[in-house]
Amino acid sequence: MFYTPRVTGYVKDDLSQEEIERQRDLYGPLTQAVRELVDATIRTTVDDDEIRQAQADVEEIVARLRTSQLDGPYGVRFGGEGRGRPWGNTVVGVRNAAAPPLVIHHDDEGNAWSDFHLGAAYEGPPNLVHGGVSSMILDQMLGEAAGAGGKPGMTGTLTLRYRKGTPLGDLRAESWIDRSEGIKTWAKGHIIGPDGVTVEAEGVFILPKWAREAIATQDPTRPTPKYFE
Amino acid sequence: MFYTPRVTGYVKDDLSQEEIERQRDLYGPLTQAVRELVDATIRTTVDDDEIRQAQADVEEIVARLRTSQLDGPYGVRFGGEGRGRPWGNTVVGVRNAAAPPLVIHHDDEGNAWSDFHLGAAYEGPPNLVHGGVSSMILDQMLGEAAGAGGKPGMTGTLTLRYRKGTPLGDLRAESWIDRSEGIKTWAKGHIIGPDGVTVEAEGVFILPKWAREAIATQDPTRPTPKYFE
Repeated sequence: MFYTPRVTGYVKDDLSQEEIERQRDLYGPLTQAVRELVDATIRTTVDDDEIRQAQADVEEIVARLRTSQLDGPYGVRFGGEGRGRPWGNTVVGVRNAAAPPLVIHHDDEGNAWSDFHLGAAYEGPPNLVHGGVSSMILDQMLGEAAGAGGKPGMTGTLTLRYRKGTPLGDLRAESWIDRSEGIKTWAKGHIIGPDGVTVEAEGVFILPKWAREAIATQDPTRPTPKYFE
Repeated sequence: MFYTPRVTGYVKDDLSQEEIERQRDLYGPLTQAVRELVDATIRTTVDDDEIRQAQADVEEIVARLRTSQLDGPYGVRFGGEGRGRPWGNTVVGVRNAAAPPLVIHHDDEGNAWSDFHLGAAYEGPPNLVHGGVSSMILDQMLGEAAGAGGKPGMTGTLTLRYRKGTPLGDLRAESWIDRSEGIKTWAKGHIIGPDGVTVEAEGVFILPKWAREAIATQDPTRPTPKYFE
């Protein structure tokens, strides 16, 4: 989302694109290592002493990282140009080890798509993606489609239809704008597994009043917001 | 869910209740440490060398944990008595650091409730819970209500209505059975923040054919399954 000082958590730090890329190269690999640790913590069968030692070692790393930290969540940060950085986001955040993370592609017509992998951390029924994870991913995907078409908004309603189990592994999600009227945009999407569509979604995305006011008053040289972060 | 050898990932290990509690006391604290690490990785502002050192140290722990591990996800494991252990589950799993985790209470009338905390790892819009996280939690909550009322099932459809933003922090979720007909159960629920209900959900849960067959043939001395894991 575009920067607006009226909503807490949208922070303008004016970082250069070069500095943003440097940070991405620094934090991305740490986050990936923690993601692997989440997976290994679920799946490990090492003996009890090794588990206790791992716990102590992780606690020690946490203490070091917490010697200097943000007071709250990451929020969305804005550099000198372009898109915000929702790096704590639970679906796409490059600093969030609980995020798969999805890398989502868009076009200007309101289409979005992503190829991604879900491992042991996303399990519901055995070997299957948790139904709630599918809904979480589709919420993000539909919101991104709305934004890609120039109609960003926050989720108003979301309906999921579960056609069959979604196996853990390599998956694809696709979303698109169905129609829009004023501040409301209807988007649709689905998740595709090895045997076709597993879950379908439809949602209404609504641009809130504060955002409409912010858009009306923002610097006209800034790019149109592409999605609602 | 009850144990059935016909579906991969439901594993009967016949652990005693004492051994299960011992494992919970062993893995719970490691998982909590990793959960703290996920949060610290999002929020830390230590210098670059500290980040690189943390990455190396985490990678070393992962390598140790991976010297012996399950081939795939955790699945649901069954001891000698009672409930399964969905310890890798992305919402409630005691070994899953990506899970808040929710501790969900039930009664026999199909009501479920949970008080839980969502921190920086669950952010969507700044300072707010990701809409997809709310849908994920409500999917689990509605499924647990259906199971609590003796009507377990897999999610067929799920509809979310977002009334207002859900702030990160201490939250409550409640769910209940609305009605049921044959293999279909309609459940409802909501998330409550400091200013009241933020998201409402309604879903249909359906007992799949393989589960109906498994129930019909299972050991009649086993307890009725309380929810579909």
